[in-house]
Amino acid sequence: MPIDESIKTYGAKIDQLLQELIPPHKKNYLSEPIWHHLYTGGKRVRPAICLITCEALGGNTKDAIPFALAVEAMHNMFLMHDDIEDGDTIRRDQPTVWMKYGIAHAINAGDYLLACAYKSILASSVSLEKKIKLLQVLTLTYGKTVEGQAIDIGARASEDFSVDNYMQMVELKTGYYLACGMVGGAIVSGASEEVVEKIWMLGKTMGPAFQIRDDLIDMTHGKGRGGVIGSDVKEGKASFLYSYTLQVACTDDKKCLRDIMLKPRDETTDNDIKWVLDIYKKYHAIQYAQDYAEDLVKQAYKTIDEIPVENKTVFKEIASFMAQRMS
Amino acid sequence: MPIDESIKTYGAKIDQLLQELIPPHKKNYLSEPIWHHLYTGGKRVRPAICLITCEALGGNTKDAIPFALAVEAMHNMFLMHDDIEDGDTIRRDQPTVWMKYGIAHAINAGDYLLACAYKSILASSVSLEKKIKLLQVLTLTYGKTVEGQAIDIGARASEDFSVDNYMQMVELKTGYYLACGMVGGAIVSGASEEVVEKIWMLGKTMGPAFQIRDDLIDMTHGKGRGGVIGSDVKEGKASFLYSYTLQVACTDDKKCLRDIMLKPRDETTDNDIKWVLDIYKKYHAIQYAQDYAEDLVKQAYKTIDEIPVENKTVFKEIASFMAQRMS
Repeated sequence: MPIDESIKTYGAKIDQLLQELIPPHKKNYLSEPIWHHLYTGGKRVRPAICLITCEALGGNTKDAIPFALAVEAMHNMFLMHDDIEDGDTIRRDQPTVWMKYGIAHAINAGDYLLACAYKSILASSVSLEKKIKLLQVLTLTYGKTVEGQAIDIGARASEDFSVDNYMQMVELKTGYYLACGMVGGAIVSGASEEVVEKIWMLGKTMGPAFQIRDDLIDMTHGKGRGGVIGSDVKEGKASFLYSYTLQVACTDDKKCLRDIMLKPRDETTDNDIKWVLDIYKKYHAIQYAQDYAEDLVKQAYKTIDEIPVENKTVFKEIASFMAQRMS
Repeated sequence: MPIDESIKTYGAKIDQLLQELIPPHKKNYLSEPIWHHLYTGGKRVRPAICLITCEALGGNTKDAIPFALAVEAMHNMFLMHDDIEDGDTIRRDQPTVWMKYGIAHAINAGDYLLACAYKSILASSVSLEKKIKLLQVLTLTYGKTVEGQAIDIGARASEDFSVDNYMQMVELKTGYYLACGMVGGAIVSGASEEVVEKIWMLGKTMGPAFQIRDDLIDMTHGKGRGGVIGSDVKEGKASFLYSYTLQVACTDDKKCLRDIMLKPRDETTDNDIKWVLDIYKKYHAIQYAQDYAEDLVKQAYKTIDEIPVENKTVFKEIASFMAQRMS
């Protein structure tokens, strides 16, 4: 089955099982905000990748389901907390949870999703050894993602945010996160430490590559609907383009760029965004970012070649799927 | 050693070990807000009780330390998130984390504390079976406390918040939380399922008893410094006194009481608080709360008598210490 199809099939399965983990019909301040958020969409790519990896490595996907659900629960916990932290009011055409239910419920409902993630793994039927390993994977990913998010939030106030800082941030914030589903699937299938280690490494190149491309899309084709470009600029988000330009631009351009990034979202004009795009072009940031991401993808494929399993196809398919963009 | 002394000694030990779990010298957006918060004080009562229970039941306290640290980390995660959710700007004479570092960092640093809690247990040297049990205890407590908090936040908007609702809320929000340290200590010591079950039951009476007394103190002696009474009224907090009065008062009094509770904190006058106190007295809410709490304490001592261990003294000492108030 082509990977797009597998993701669709497994994604639908996950959607159904999420309803068992968090009953949507319960009328309370946890299920309601959580399902308001979950119903806005999402393709459940992360858990699907977990199941696909497990299957490809000869494991029983049934055993990987609790971990896959945990990954999806944690992912959505982060989205709910991130929306507050970033001040995002809209997600997939719907008001974000904090906009609809208030900050207090949004923090708390996010916290609840994490409890559900741990609950799911703890209730799974794998061996104690595997269970502990899976809990370690979840905890490592959770902690590292939070560390990356701390850098991300702090970056907005920073005067010199370099490409090195950016790479550290996205390795933490995106790298572990991206590999986590695959790692969990591999562990359930009984894969060796070496396999697991290589998949973590894969995340450290694929994650940043994916993130840099996401940053590029925002300035070239626009994220979300309508093809409006520059939402990262409006948000003051520390993108690859921003960190690189900050590093190479002259003092005046640097100051002007920072001033635009620090403007409140609704004060950022179309002209500001045009100016930023021009400055990115002037310093060849877009070309540099494209080359940088391409290089990371090459490294990722090299890592895949080094994974000590016979069937490497699945990792190549996942990498190629991700390169096309996940959401 | 008297229990106050044990708590002091173990509390100091925990303070020191927390510095290993979360290095305070690290200059970043996680350690800084977390240590700003931890340095505001706190007696580390919860982890101390965990160690005391473990010791009393014949366990090695060294083995219980990772769980004790986890309990303290989770406790402080809740305080940091609660301060945002409740809009509290001051904790122990210091600005709360969100006031000093912003909401984004406060949510994220709280999330990090939870990662540290799980990390601590996962790294402990107890058997796999015990480790899984401890992770279950933490996850159960974490999830139930969040459920209770959801009711608490929602209560402010509710027109009829009954004593039953209140009891459900505090059993979830305080009951598990209070028993959790003792349960963990017992598990590490190798206690039976029956012992663990009874300690959970103990939490379900001690927790609410403690909370009702806390509610009473707020209206009689005042929480925090200066003996200013009525901070729960200012916060619009659903206390026992409030839920009981809402249930028995006439329509006019009920409406007036609700209006005061819904006022923004800085618009609540001293006269409002005096009015609320008078209305609580009018409906004998204070007496009712005292009797109710006393009854719960009696039930708690009955549960202690049923715990199938020889040395019940430790539980009586803990219960009596808590009845005097923890912080």
